[in-house]
Amino acid sequence: MEGESKSSVDVIDEGSEGKGKELLVGTCDLVMRLLAFVMTLVAAVVIVADKQTAIVSIKLVDSEPPLDVPVTAKWHYLSALVYFVGANATACAYATVSLVLTLANRRKGKGMETLISVFDALMVALLFSGNGAAIAIGLLGLQGNSHLHWNKVCNVFGKFCHQTTVSLFTSLLGSTAFLLLLVVPPLLRLKRTN
Amino acid sequence: MEGESKSSVDVIDEGSEGKGKELLVGTCDLVMRLLAFVMTLVAAVVIVADKQTAIVSIKLVDSEPPLDVPVTAKWHYLSALVYFVGANATACAYATVSLVLTLANRRKGKGMETLISVFDALMVALLFSGNGAAIAIGLLGLQGNSHLHWNKVCNVFGKFCHQTTVSLFTSLLGSTAFLLLLVVPPLLRLKRTN
Repeated sequence: MEGESKSSVDVIDEGSEGKGKELLVGTCDLVMRLLAFVMTLVAAVVIVADKQTAIVSIKLVDSEPPLDVPVTAKWHYLSALVYFVGANATACAYATVSLVLTLANRRKGKGMETLISVFDALMVALLFSGNGAAIAIGLLGLQGNSHLHWNKVCNVFGKFCHQTTVSLFTSLLGSTAFLLLLVVPPLLRLKRTN
Repeated sequence: MEGESKSSVDVIDEGSEGKGKELLVGTCDLVMRLLAFVMTLVAAVVIVADKQTAIVSIKLVDSEPPLDVPVTAKWHYLSALVYFVGANATACAYATVSLVLTLANRRKGKGMETLISVFDALMVALLFSGNGAAIAIGLLGLQGNSHLHWNKVCNVFGKFCHQTTVSLFTSLLGSTAFLLLLVVPPLLRLKRTN
């Protein structure tokens, strides 16, 4: 009798623990998806609005003095930044769709859950490749490369580079949110073995 | 009686189907992990062995004729390629460890499976960021950027760029294998709803 009552208590405990865990997983999922949406949106908007015009001295003829000409830096002059914007815009659009699907269907089936996690994984690959490309170009702009005679440009376009850094940082936060969407739910669902 | 026998047949069918599915998932996991190991190893080795010396005409003084000097291109002259090598080497080492763990413990517990899938997700992020960085720099080397006055260098270091492309391609295959490790098992395990 005592054993029976203990076992039924265990079942109730396990059931409520399971429900609590699923509630925690669902809340984490929503928070991280919302964070991913906001961060990728901010990253895309900040870099698309990034533009700076600076006066640069250019020597056209060796015997003549250099000419001061206005030169403009824009994000779409660099294919890496175009890819970065595309990756963040795609991830932002997907985050919106997945948020709506998650909110409309809180008790989503296994099929929908699997499909969403597959797309989350694709977004991680897309966003991190975009971040890698943009950071590589950003570092070149900041430091240049003496071996290849690629001069640094951030000493001239300081505001442009600063805004790009802000965009990169927010994109990294958004990408980490997508990565956590893959990593955290399985870890939370894991039963404690000890 | 008829219904009872039908239901027991269903249970047997479902059980054997489940075992068949798990065998398929296990085989896919091993094949993709092996592919990821080989591809990331080849990518790292090919780019580390990448080196080319070319004769370049450099004008030191305007009034003097240009001088022909030997210039060497090496992977570690570019921080993006250093990161790319680091990412592939790390992923290759992890693929070895995870292969050994998977082979030694075919019936791995839920805890080990979750831990491995968490590291698989981290490898996807690491490898794709490395690929993005290397592709961005590779495209600059191939096409240059007229806005920033960064000249293309692949017209001089053709062999170096060709070998980098091979390494990038194999790294992309290895990264896709890691991505498939995240995506395929949940899709295979998914029960057909229709």
